[in-house]
Amino acid sequence: MKRSDRLVSMTNYFLENPRRLNPLPRFTEMYQAAKSSISEDLVIVDRVFQEEGIGHLQTIAGAAGGVRYIPEFSTDSSLHFINALCSKLEDPVRILPGGYLYMSDILGDPKMVNQIGRVLGSAFSDAEIEVVVTVATKGIPLAYAVASYLAVPVVIVRRDPKVTEGSSVSINYVSGSSRKIQTMVLPKRSLKEGANVCIIDDFMKAGGTITGMTSLLAEFNANVKAIGVLAEADDEEEDRVVENYTSLIKISNVDIKQKRIQVLPGNFNQK
Amino acid sequence: MKRSDRLVSMTNYFLENPRRLNPLPRFTEMYQAAKSSISEDLVIVDRVFQEEGIGHLQTIAGAAGGVRYIPEFSTDSSLHFINALCSKLEDPVRILPGGYLYMSDILGDPKMVNQIGRVLGSAFSDAEIEVVVTVATKGIPLAYAVASYLAVPVVIVRRDPKVTEGSSVSINYVSGSSRKIQTMVLPKRSLKEGANVCIIDDFMKAGGTITGMTSLLAEFNANVKAIGVLAEADDEEEDRVVENYTSLIKISNVDIKQKRIQVLPGNFNQK
Repeated sequence: MKRSDRLVSMTNYFLENPRRLNPLPRFTEMYQAAKSSISEDLVIVDRVFQEEGIGHLQTIAGAAGGVRYIPEFSTDSSLHFINALCSKLEDPVRILPGGYLYMSDILGDPKMVNQIGRVLGSAFSDAEIEVVVTVATKGIPLAYAVASYLAVPVVIVRRDPKVTEGSSVSINYVSGSSRKIQTMVLPKRSLKEGANVCIIDDFMKAGGTITGMTSLLAEFNANVKAIGVLAEADDEEEDRVVENYTSLIKISNVDIKQKRIQVLPGNFNQK
Repeated sequence: MKRSDRLVSMTNYFLENPRRLNPLPRFTEMYQAAKSSISEDLVIVDRVFQEEGIGHLQTIAGAAGGVRYIPEFSTDSSLHFINALCSKLEDPVRILPGGYLYMSDILGDPKMVNQIGRVLGSAFSDAEIEVVVTVATKGIPLAYAVASYLAVPVVIVRRDPKVTEGSSVSINYVSGSSRKIQTMVLPKRSLKEGANVCIIDDFMKAGGTITGMTSLLAEFNANVKAIGVLAEADDEEEDRVVENYTSLIKISNVDIKQKRIQVLPGNFNQK
């Protein structure tokens, strides 16, 4: 195979297999090419990936070594994306009765969801996450986007037990905003003991849901290494019960009468 | 930029932007290269994409023309994937009380989910789908995977109305297997009138859920162009109420006493 063909094939391979360690012989055999040619290919792929701001190739020396693609999303690209999202969300037609904000179109766009996953994932890149955990329903697509980026599985906490998943662990918790007692369930076999997890959700108000998840995860002796949300509500009347989290945007000053809304960048860049 | 660098950059661009029509000047400007060089690049990318079985570049002539990446997943690759999935699922430790099958690990693996999305998406590639519709909860990741492949948005039908999405249309339907009356809700602004939709779900037994979705979608005058499920239950005692669907696998003969289970390819290849 010629260099030009190899580069197209390799680019696809790395993008498809983030974080997987590939011994060099894999490529020399796959492409029937000399080690020196493959090494030159890898230099090119690495350079262009860095220029495009999508990550880099990491080379590990030694017998158990090889090369792997570490996805990255630059802080500049992240902030650019966050600012564009803020403008998009400030459209007053998004205001719903009760002062809520319509975001289903954003969360329904796979490309947008993917970008959000990259931004959140890049913030947790070094946290050695083994599993992404979310709670049904709206956080699910974001959780998969982050998990794809980190190349780890997703576990979904449910609010209702399903007969089809075997024995479960459940907890009751008090919702932060409504003060109601709610239930959360996780099937026993869905999470191994002591895993490093990252919690992902679409929206955080007082943080009751995330506190509930943290309690449920404690039953599995999980280490909550990171918490990421797309949006947080900037509500000064309520005490936030979750402290260590990363948010991309902050929704404040929803004025239903004046049809005005303010959407600001979250704490992403202050971490 | 040199050809080698352009090829890496272009490959990433096309994989990131499936089905988007790109006028050639976009590339000549982006890479500061002559039209003839870009044309040669495109021939290389197209050839390798076809060899890799991931799709092809479609060229549209004329002033409004350009080039776009049409993702494809070959029937061979699909059948290979389906057969591997069947073997994986036949493991008797997956049998749950009640004769259900544990599949959460499969549905929790973003890479696996992506592959399922490719196989189902490739089956509906020519159906001019505008929106992928699913029902909470387990079908959601599959719906996003199919939608990414088809480059269209996802709309999620819920079983409980959420105050945060504005006015909704709801229907009651009779569940096929339990004969209970259930509710389904879709926010009004989430789906435009008369859209071409594809319904995706993880599992179909008698098909009551999908029939319910079809009724709800009729309220939006949607055209259900395709129905895709990961798994169907091969249950001869029940009459299937949905006829035109595509399934990847068929679960039959779950024998709890003998700890045996049979998982066969679905009707994917008979369509």
